[in-house]
Amino acid sequence: MHVLILGAAGMIGRKFAESLAAQPLDGGAVTRMTLADVVLPQVPAGFDGAAETLAVDVASPDAITALLSSQPDVIYHLAAIVSGEAEANLEKGYKVNLDGTRLLLDAIRHQHDRDGWTPRFVFASSNAVFGGDFPDVIGDDYIVTPQTSYGTQKAIGELLLADYTRRGIVQGIGLRLPTICVRPGKPNAAASGFFSGIIREPLVGLEAILPVPDDTRHWMTSPRSAIGFLRHAATMDLTRLGDRPNLSMPALSVTVAEQIAALEKVAGPRATALIRRVPDATIARIVAGWARAFDPKRALSLGFTAETSFEAIIRAHIEDELGGELRHV
Amino acid sequence: MHVLILGAAGMIGRKFAESLAAQPLDGGAVTRMTLADVVLPQVPAGFDGAAETLAVDVASPDAITALLSSQPDVIYHLAAIVSGEAEANLEKGYKVNLDGTRLLLDAIRHQHDRDGWTPRFVFASSNAVFGGDFPDVIGDDYIVTPQTSYGTQKAIGELLLADYTRRGIVQGIGLRLPTICVRPGKPNAAASGFFSGIIREPLVGLEAILPVPDDTRHWMTSPRSAIGFLRHAATMDLTRLGDRPNLSMPALSVTVAEQIAALEKVAGPRATALIRRVPDATIARIVAGWARAFDPKRALSLGFTAETSFEAIIRAHIEDELGGELRHV
Repeated sequence: MHVLILGAAGMIGRKFAESLAAQPLDGGAVTRMTLADVVLPQVPAGFDGAAETLAVDVASPDAITALLSSQPDVIYHLAAIVSGEAEANLEKGYKVNLDGTRLLLDAIRHQHDRDGWTPRFVFASSNAVFGGDFPDVIGDDYIVTPQTSYGTQKAIGELLLADYTRRGIVQGIGLRLPTICVRPGKPNAAASGFFSGIIREPLVGLEAILPVPDDTRHWMTSPRSAIGFLRHAATMDLTRLGDRPNLSMPALSVTVAEQIAALEKVAGPRATALIRRVPDATIARIVAGWARAFDPKRALSLGFTAETSFEAIIRAHIEDELGGELRHV
Repeated sequence: MHVLILGAAGMIGRKFAESLAAQPLDGGAVTRMTLADVVLPQVPAGFDGAAETLAVDVASPDAITALLSSQPDVIYHLAAIVSGEAEANLEKGYKVNLDGTRLLLDAIRHQHDRDGWTPRFVFASSNAVFGGDFPDVIGDDYIVTPQTSYGTQKAIGELLLADYTRRGIVQGIGLRLPTICVRPGKPNAAASGFFSGIIREPLVGLEAILPVPDDTRHWMTSPRSAIGFLRHAATMDLTRLGDRPNLSMPALSVTVAEQIAALEKVAGPRATALIRRVPDATIARIVAGWARAFDPKRALSLGFTAETSFEAIIRAHIEDELGGELRHV
């Protein structure tokens, strides 16, 4: 199987490529990978198939046509301008997140019209397509009314994916990814960063800032689960999606207090003592606009799975990022 | 008030311009009209304000910039490639219905960035944004999953409108128009044409074909109500829309049998005898995929109104199109 990952230099793209190198998919091994991003991605260590890496601009029609010329079996479209930047720079967000997605689908269409190529197309959407006035638990039939330009662009991507799938141009599936926690790496400026920071930093003996009240509830899953969603989407029976190829992914609805309680259980009070409460009204207001829980019946019935306790999310982080050991607490 | 109507040569655009000429809006008279379409629209008879007419290609950035240079107070975007053509010609549909809408919003944005101009923008969306697996009655919170390219393009237009409104670039409102019945003029090839044909033709002594079973249910309103929606959108308090500027419009959920019964009540059995049942499986299948009823609570609470009996819809047609008299039956 030949897999193209667009956005392969990002955290999820990199982990996904590593997973494909380490373990065959349900439908067989990946024998070829094409890895593309705005910066040159790395081929995962130990991959013994054919690999190409490319630095591409998804807003360039020529670059996209060249990227697709090898006609991969499965295309993962993970590339995007993130939420904060898409909000700050309207033109850049629409250019990459809307035009880039459309260029990809249209480049496939042109090739499809010539020779019938109909690749599987896995689109990374986001829970950010929901916004504004929503219920405590968002069901699969709930209306999409994004309140950010990023969410708008992802929602438009979902609509394009559905239309091009309905027309038989791609075999599409869109995955609305939850917030990823525990996100590895350094703290960043994302408003959601603290959900990971309050776990990641204390586990290595560092202080972390908590800017929101302890009763703040959010919907999150581990990087490991997110990689599992992408793997499952490669080979699952897409006819089961019916006329709705976009799915809210499963995750865990958890409060900050529950996160901290799980951290104490796993790493003790010396870890939780490193969390410093510094209320930030701006961050609290942004986070208050985010979905707190979903009832992702469709995704669950289609075989997507996620952690059901926050302790399991912490243990996945310790196994995947800290070599399975706690040395600093 | 200066009003721009893009799509002014269409049935609704023309009737709306006539209505603005005949009767002031709640917020005052229209003193200037700019009427644009792919073909040159006509200035309505009796309009005593300033009027310009333009033939424009909505997919041309230069034409759109020129069109907006007079900075109207309210912009009505009614222009679109219709459902059947957008399905048959993917590129043309996306070019006009998606790119055209985006060009308009971006041309406004460029001017807004220069001088703060923030016009009211009324977008004609459609019930075609709903499709696939939906309940008998579609509520205001129900997910949008179009099953045509036209519906997809209208749904994307709604998302763009909402984002540009949220960002303060336009004062947007999107109206999901129901099927219009009784549509004046000649029979056309639209799959929905018979809903009007079985009333319009018998009322002037002509035979009409009914291709679907009598128990077929659909959601429809008169041209008069549709014009009322557009008029109301010109001056209503948009802050009441909250963070959701797109609204399902009210209409009447009625079966073909109820349409025919109302026709008999208004025009007698000689009229209904002119309806000839010629089942057409293709049309029946298309129509079966359309929404049958809505529960448009938000629009009703915001003051949009429509007929509540099909007899009223027939009488509106007789008054508006037949001079108030039945001469042929």
